[in-house]
Amino acid sequence: MNAFLDALRERLGEAGLLTGGDLSAYENDWRKRYVGKALAVARPASTEEVAAVMHLCHEHRVAVVPQGGNTGLVGGSTPDDSGGQLVLSLSRMKRVRGIDIANASLTAEAGCVLAEVQAAAAQAGMLFPLSLAAEGSCTLGGNLATNAGGTQVLRYGNARELCLGLEVVTATGEVWQGLSGLRKDNTGYDLRDLFIGSEGTLGIITTATMKLYPQPKERLTALAACDSLDGAVALLGLARERAGDALTGFEVMNRASLALVARELPQLAQPLGPAEWTVLLELSDAESAEHARAVFEGLLEAAVERGCVQNAAIAQNLQQARAFWHLRESIPLAQAQAGLNIKHDISLPVSAIPGFVAEMDAALAAYLPGIDVIDFGHLGDGNLHYNVQAPVGVAPAEFLAAHEVAINELVYDAVQQRGGSISAEHGIGRLKREELAQRKDPTALALMRAIKRALDPLDLLNPGRLV
Amino acid sequence: MNAFLDALRERLGEAGLLTGGDLSAYENDWRKRYVGKALAVARPASTEEVAAVMHLCHEHRVAVVPQGGNTGLVGGSTPDDSGGQLVLSLSRMKRVRGIDIANASLTAEAGCVLAEVQAAAAQAGMLFPLSLAAEGSCTLGGNLATNAGGTQVLRYGNARELCLGLEVVTATGEVWQGLSGLRKDNTGYDLRDLFIGSEGTLGIITTATMKLYPQPKERLTALAACDSLDGAVALLGLARERAGDALTGFEVMNRASLALVARELPQLAQPLGPAEWTVLLELSDAESAEHARAVFEGLLEAAVERGCVQNAAIAQNLQQARAFWHLRESIPLAQAQAGLNIKHDISLPVSAIPGFVAEMDAALAAYLPGIDVIDFGHLGDGNLHYNVQAPVGVAPAEFLAAHEVAINELVYDAVQQRGGSISAEHGIGRLKREELAQRKDPTALALMRAIKRALDPLDLLNPGRLV
Repeated sequence: MNAFLDALRERLGEAGLLTGGDLSAYENDWRKRYVGKALAVARPASTEEVAAVMHLCHEHRVAVVPQGGNTGLVGGSTPDDSGGQLVLSLSRMKRVRGIDIANASLTAEAGCVLAEVQAAAAQAGMLFPLSLAAEGSCTLGGNLATNAGGTQVLRYGNARELCLGLEVVTATGEVWQGLSGLRKDNTGYDLRDLFIGSEGTLGIITTATMKLYPQPKERLTALAACDSLDGAVALLGLARERAGDALTGFEVMNRASLALVARELPQLAQPLGPAEWTVLLELSDAESAEHARAVFEGLLEAAVERGCVQNAAIAQNLQQARAFWHLRESIPLAQAQAGLNIKHDISLPVSAIPGFVAEMDAALAAYLPGIDVIDFGHLGDGNLHYNVQAPVGVAPAEFLAAHEVAINELVYDAVQQRGGSISAEHGIGRLKREELAQRKDPTALALMRAIKRALDPLDLLNPGRLV
Repeated sequence: MNAFLDALRERLGEAGLLTGGDLSAYENDWRKRYVGKALAVARPASTEEVAAVMHLCHEHRVAVVPQGGNTGLVGGSTPDDSGGQLVLSLSRMKRVRGIDIANASLTAEAGCVLAEVQAAAAQAGMLFPLSLAAEGSCTLGGNLATNAGGTQVLRYGNARELCLGLEVVTATGEVWQGLSGLRKDNTGYDLRDLFIGSEGTLGIITTATMKLYPQPKERLTALAACDSLDGAVALLGLARERAGDALTGFEVMNRASLALVARELPQLAQPLGPAEWTVLLELSDAESAEHARAVFEGLLEAAVERGCVQNAAIAQNLQQARAFWHLRESIPLAQAQAGLNIKHDISLPVSAIPGFVAEMDAALAAYLPGIDVIDFGHLGDGNLHYNVQAPVGVAPAEFLAAHEVAINELVYDAVQQRGGSISAEHGIGRLKREELAQRKDPTALALMRAIKRALDPLDLLNPGRLV
């Protein structure tokens, strides 16, 4: 190993290789679920240096754990505790290489923090729409490696749909120069989308060309109270029909979610009062503030007339809009304050969601009376964070120890029956690898393993993750 | 081979296997560039039968050429002339399995003709936006295998972006059940997008779940005359900024294209008269006819003020809108009437297009004075059909024989220099396989070949195509 580290140090310089001191920020995930021990941390500053690292790793048979902002939720970006895995941090590759306004595209290195990419686009008068809670520290490379979702997927898609081209370093240290600003390119297999979402197990994304959009003229937010989830689904259809692509956000929160927020964060105003389901809608209008408001008012009036909405409020200014979003975003915080819970990041066809929630709420209540389901998420994408909290008076840690396995089985069985996904946006990593091996279509698993063997025969790229 | 054909006949029945009679519709492409000889034509009626065919092909080592509507332009869907390849036609699998309005999705078998899929969506009050010249005979399976483009890509993406899930039969006859109506699913490698665009070389798409959209309330079409391609690019930026996603079409036609139409098809009205560049714009409005017209008028007035448009006309009714589109769509017909020409289906970053066209027009004029460039296409997607016609008085066949290789080299070199693609929407097939092997990034080629070997080690799936 010394020969390997010496060769690395020679190639990367002192700034490019960390072998001593406190490496815990690289070795542990931020939720402290995975505590690891790295052989070292390589911090290459260019694509050529990443390629050199992979050449050396291949030569010396050293496994590599690629790392971006290390904000993942499934243990995909930290080393195991063997002390034998090299962390390859992309954090020094943070240059926005260029913005092409006429082509509506931006090229940036993997280590750019998402918020910096958003800011660079905004400075050029354009919108880079990927947006999620960790945007202040997650990186573009990590967003692509995990196909990040977030709050604007309904209109703009996941990280995958926003990407035009990639530069990738392979397991053997070759560079695939696939950067491209093209909207159409039918010259062979879709390598880009194969690397996106592969969680660092097939190659290392070093740079990407991403789509930009015009900034909307106005962005308006509203809250709507619905008697039922069927009502919320009907509202979604109506909003799509009347607002088309101006509909950029459609989030739901069940009664228990907002009751939990009221309990844990009483300082937050809840403008509509309790409802079975509260919907947060966002419209982004290409035209004008007046037009946006007219569309929104027309939509909400029609929804009230049809009976799918009982009550609604449009934010009157930016501050109020932020407060509406903050209410939605504070649910995970309220959950964290209330203690451990059993989290599920599931997706279903939108049409299957009301039936799933009714059946599952009833099944959980039967399984353990008093159980609390904190159900919220991106209804427009069919993505729910269906989290289960301990009954009042039961210690959360004991609750998890006793019931997590059984509750996961209940939830995932019902998801699978309806053609849903057990990981809508968080990925697989180490956390759900076994579950995936049990539940994924066997032919799909065989294909995935064949691809992994073909592109990384020595299993050096993020071994033990995903596949 | 008899044992193989007997086993096939037993499994598929008489209707499922054609071994005699005139098979030319399956053996030759519609442009008659590729004339082949099939071992037989298998016509399975279900996914299970497709799997059975592949099982037998694997057992007997018989190569398979999957075929949809056989409307491709690159020789990807017809057998070679060896008489040893089995044509696997999906034409009997033409059931629309279901439409899910609340989830905005449709599931249909591979053999469904594109126009039938559009009609099924329309009957349910929804829009399936994929649209291209061959829609009356091309099939959904073929559209996905080739990642078809067409006229609505600017807003709705290629076939790839419209697909949510696939059912695929592998080289060994296993079925991957990847049908899904999910907008978010991060459970492993993106197999869907790997099969899409792989031209039948990695697996056989049997069924797909596709996205649907609300029908727009109004669709308006306009023609605009621009002095320069820079003006057309500026108009595109302005249209995106003001109309957002309501902009569903942005096609350009150079002066020579419309002059050719005027000569070959003089019965077609050309409302604007000759211009350096004529742009066809389409707006699809979610709101109302009045709103659509107001947006369009505002946009065109602003464009005239800025000097990027010299003259414009908005279609006053559906008939006129169709006439505008017909003008654009008649260019290939006018070309066919004028005789053979050298076709290029290229894409570039939109920002690189004016420079490319200026340089290439000059280079071709220098190469052969009197040469005629028929340049038209989907500027919004950066996709040009940059076709080169013989000078007046030169026989087209002689022109091609003498100059096709040299002109391709000129054009493709300039495309490659600017990071463009030599096949934007038509694919590779047999026609461009050698060109691709010369020009594609070597690492990409190596990755593609590794994937092909991993998923089809016996090279039974459409051998000799693409990779």
